[in-house]
Amino acid sequence: MLLLRAVAGRRLPVPLPPPPRRSCPRAGAASLAPGSPPGAGGRGRAAPVLAALLGLGAVLAYGERRRRAAQATQAAPAPRYPLYTREEVGRHRSPPDRVWVTHGTEVFDVTDFVELHPGGADKILLAAGGALEPFWALYAVHHQPHVLELLREYKVGELSPEEAAVPAPAAGDPFAGDPPRHPGLRVNSQKPFNAEPPPELLAERFLTPNELFFTRNHLPVPAVDAETYRLRVEGPGGRELSLSLEELRSRFPKHEVTATLQCAGNRRADMSRVRPVKGLDWDIGAIGTARWGGARLRDVLLHAGFGERPEGEWHVCFEGLDADVGGAPYGASIPYGKAVSPEGDVLLAYEMNGAALPRDHGFPLRAVVPGVVGARNVKWLRRVAVSPAESPSHWQQSDYKGFAPCVDWDTVDYSAAPAIQELPVQSAITQPRPGAAVPPGELTVKGYAWSGGGRGVVRVDVSLDGGRSWRVARLAGERQEPGRAWAWTLWELQAPVAAGAGELEIVCKAVDSSYNVQPDTVAPIWNLRGVLSNAWHRVRVSVRP
Amino acid sequence: MLLLRAVAGRRLPVPLPPPPRRSCPRAGAASLAPGSPPGAGGRGRAAPVLAALLGLGAVLAYGERRRRAAQATQAAPAPRYPLYTREEVGRHRSPPDRVWVTHGTEVFDVTDFVELHPGGADKILLAAGGALEPFWALYAVHHQPHVLELLREYKVGELSPEEAAVPAPAAGDPFAGDPPRHPGLRVNSQKPFNAEPPPELLAERFLTPNELFFTRNHLPVPAVDAETYRLRVEGPGGRELSLSLEELRSRFPKHEVTATLQCAGNRRADMSRVRPVKGLDWDIGAIGTARWGGARLRDVLLHAGFGERPEGEWHVCFEGLDADVGGAPYGASIPYGKAVSPEGDVLLAYEMNGAALPRDHGFPLRAVVPGVVGARNVKWLRRVAVSPAESPSHWQQSDYKGFAPCVDWDTVDYSAAPAIQELPVQSAITQPRPGAAVPPGELTVKGYAWSGGGRGVVRVDVSLDGGRSWRVARLAGERQEPGRAWAWTLWELQAPVAAGAGELEIVCKAVDSSYNVQPDTVAPIWNLRGVLSNAWHRVRVSVRP
Repeated sequence: MLLLRAVAGRRLPVPLPPPPRRSCPRAGAASLAPGSPPGAGGRGRAAPVLAALLGLGAVLAYGERRRRAAQATQAAPAPRYPLYTREEVGRHRSPPDRVWVTHGTEVFDVTDFVELHPGGADKILLAAGGALEPFWALYAVHHQPHVLELLREYKVGELSPEEAAVPAPAAGDPFAGDPPRHPGLRVNSQKPFNAEPPPELLAERFLTPNELFFTRNHLPVPAVDAETYRLRVEGPGGRELSLSLEELRSRFPKHEVTATLQCAGNRRADMSRVRPVKGLDWDIGAIGTARWGGARLRDVLLHAGFGERPEGEWHVCFEGLDADVGGAPYGASIPYGKAVSPEGDVLLAYEMNGAALPRDHGFPLRAVVPGVVGARNVKWLRRVAVSPAESPSHWQQSDYKGFAPCVDWDTVDYSAAPAIQELPVQSAITQPRPGAAVPPGELTVKGYAWSGGGRGVVRVDVSLDGGRSWRVARLAGERQEPGRAWAWTLWELQAPVAAGAGELEIVCKAVDSSYNVQPDTVAPIWNLRGVLSNAWHRVRVSVRP
Repeated sequence: MLLLRAVAGRRLPVPLPPPPRRSCPRAGAASLAPGSPPGAGGRGRAAPVLAALLGLGAVLAYGERRRRAAQATQAAPAPRYPLYTREEVGRHRSPPDRVWVTHGTEVFDVTDFVELHPGGADKILLAAGGALEPFWALYAVHHQPHVLELLREYKVGELSPEEAAVPAPAAGDPFAGDPPRHPGLRVNSQKPFNAEPPPELLAERFLTPNELFFTRNHLPVPAVDAETYRLRVEGPGGRELSLSLEELRSRFPKHEVTATLQCAGNRRADMSRVRPVKGLDWDIGAIGTARWGGARLRDVLLHAGFGERPEGEWHVCFEGLDADVGGAPYGASIPYGKAVSPEGDVLLAYEMNGAALPRDHGFPLRAVVPGVVGARNVKWLRRVAVSPAESPSHWQQSDYKGFAPCVDWDTVDYSAAPAIQELPVQSAITQPRPGAAVPPGELTVKGYAWSGGGRGVVRVDVSLDGGRSWRVARLAGERQEPGRAWAWTLWELQAPVAAGAGELEIVCKAVDSSYNVQPDTVAPIWNLRGVLSNAWHRVRVSVRP
């Protein structure tokens, strides 16, 4: 909150901009006085919300800016602006190159606002060189008249008229039908699409916005017509069912579960720094939390005549509508006991955070298997089969398994390791970011922690000295039911940092309800596929002098 | 297997003893030839068993010794022997002081047999200075005529006649009624009695012999009359039951579960080496595995009218007959869901490895809660109560919880941490022992691994270089049902060790079915009570030149 620091009279890390556009706004009682110009009603409604979200100082600063902007608009005639292409806008992504953004067809140079942005400089820079709308869509605080007014102060141009057109997809590209994505996502692979949100946005909210939820696709996104869609349910000892989406909605009670999904490869980047691995180079964002809604798999299985507790070890195999060039679908399985347990909370989900499943997340139906690795949460479900064997799919049999550091591609025997189901305890620091220069004073460290199998997070320890000494973080959120703690825990620590502290190595480690802990270092858990990367998360920052 | 190495013609680590008593026996085809002296039938039956247990070489060596002993007995008249007290025998516990043992009323100097002992020198030394019988009782291989014959070669004396008497207990001592214990146990506290088996015996067998099973008593052992014993079962919404042992046996099906119990303080010694902690200084032996038999707690709860899935969070509280001077009993509780789940396998156990529960292990009835810390497996059960709250007992509320390393006795808040239930993944090296001098060649490393919550052990990694490189150990035993893998996994690794390797730091770490791993080091998991000590186990040995 740089703005707040400025208001409090502390040293600003960037030179104070000259007035009027470059003045450091100061909050004053005057801006709260009666007799405000038209629009004050809007501000009046917004103020409590803003105050809650951003702190009161930021609201006051916003109000002051708004007043000055209104004065400027009244005084000056509407200017003519130069025209720019999106590509030209895209060249302005950092303060040295100026920071440009678009809104509608307008182009703005917001360089001087970056450090004043109440949500933090890092957040506004996510939109640098592109459109603001996808980010504003995530943060309702921007949907207020004074925000647009404020923005107009920074207008420098307009988009060329030909920029409205979207380029046509290449013919014959199996990925041509993939849906549009949020520009804030960090793309690890375009085809198939794999992307994660920027770490600084990851733990801002308990529920990850659908647009920012990490996407892990193995194949092109299938185009599914919800009207004609059917789910097949079958297996020995049961009736074969074919269910439409409407039948799934109307015949089975809707069940809602807040659950975190994590890719087995989350934090693989830490592992590939030790030794190269095969796989997408996920940072800490291949994890997210949503409120999922759908039919319980248990209800569907019992409806199909399968029992509560069959003899022997059974599995529920999922098949997706996404298929490779040979027609082989993505597939995975989970133990039958997990699928049928009333406490297992496994869903055939058609909703994500109150909306229909987005196409990238399995529209119209996906498996949500709380506490279990993302790979088993099969998207675009076409078939659910009860079986005495695990899914024969490549992804069940020959991928998503853990091995010792000594196993390489010459010696690996995939049959020797169990398929990953429940994931181990995990945590990561989302703030500050590696390499950041933090001011001396009170340092805020934030992050997430989660464990598989419904094991809640009972403690997060944070070190500022590489693990030599520890503090206990404050855990946010409500207590979850033991054994069904499917969602992550966001955490925060405030700690004093002395000027002259130099480099800090910030470390976090979580403890789950079975008192499992994270390993200290990466090398001893290194594995050739770079999965299960859950060593202590370490972030090095420097303290400004 | 020093004997086998000698037979194979390798260098013996001790000087070859002179004949006849000091000859290094060599196995030969002759000892297997027909026409053996009387007693060969016994050997014939024993040979396959011995071969399986000790390897064929050892059997051949035994046979050869046996033949020579028989010749010696025929030749010499029975000598008169000096008399010794037990205290005098007890002064001979190591080769420099000579190694004496007793059997019945006879005293033997087995110093020269120590390195020839087929089970290993370390094993026979456990009995040094005392009686052989308690150890022979654990290893049926000794119950053969030729073993006694072999022993008689080493006779040096007899026990004084007055040595039969056992000292009377002190009057007024609340522990005076405690049962006799196996002399092989390593006692951490005599009153209350807390003891663990020698590490070198710990992983010799999948099922830990009752006599060697670690004993963790908080209070004196209650004297219970099985005839008048009653268990009270009660709680809101259920019928109050009072059950005799006979009723528990006859009214409910007997259920058997093979489960490992581990004390929360197992391996505390590793933690107290980092910084002092409060608690008994357990080495690696506060863990053991038994086949438990009894009524399922689930069956008893349902019989008492409690439901399968009550609304809200309920608990099952256990109270023991062991009480402190103020009359407060030992107590603990477990989540109701665990108690009532058919897959939870919680027992009201009256049998341990096929025998009635020994007094030290809860006679006549104890809770066995597979996958859960030993402290909740309440012994000498007097009351089982369903309750909306956890047990109010000191041991539930203000002990057996985990804290961060920064929490000390001035700042600890026991209400801030959850009671330990499921334990995290654990492993330890039982062979070789710290400080051992191992011969160059093939090194055998053995140990145990276990995890709480029914999570089976899927891999054990072993390093001989302090964790820089790893090998994968061979896991013994049958695969356990996923989610109900209550028993430990014994493991073994053979690895070549070069002469001149100097010091080795042997390390083990286990991976459980949720791919949880052990932390690298102790300091970051240090806690003021020294519980949950599950960092990599490290054993330093030297390689003989």
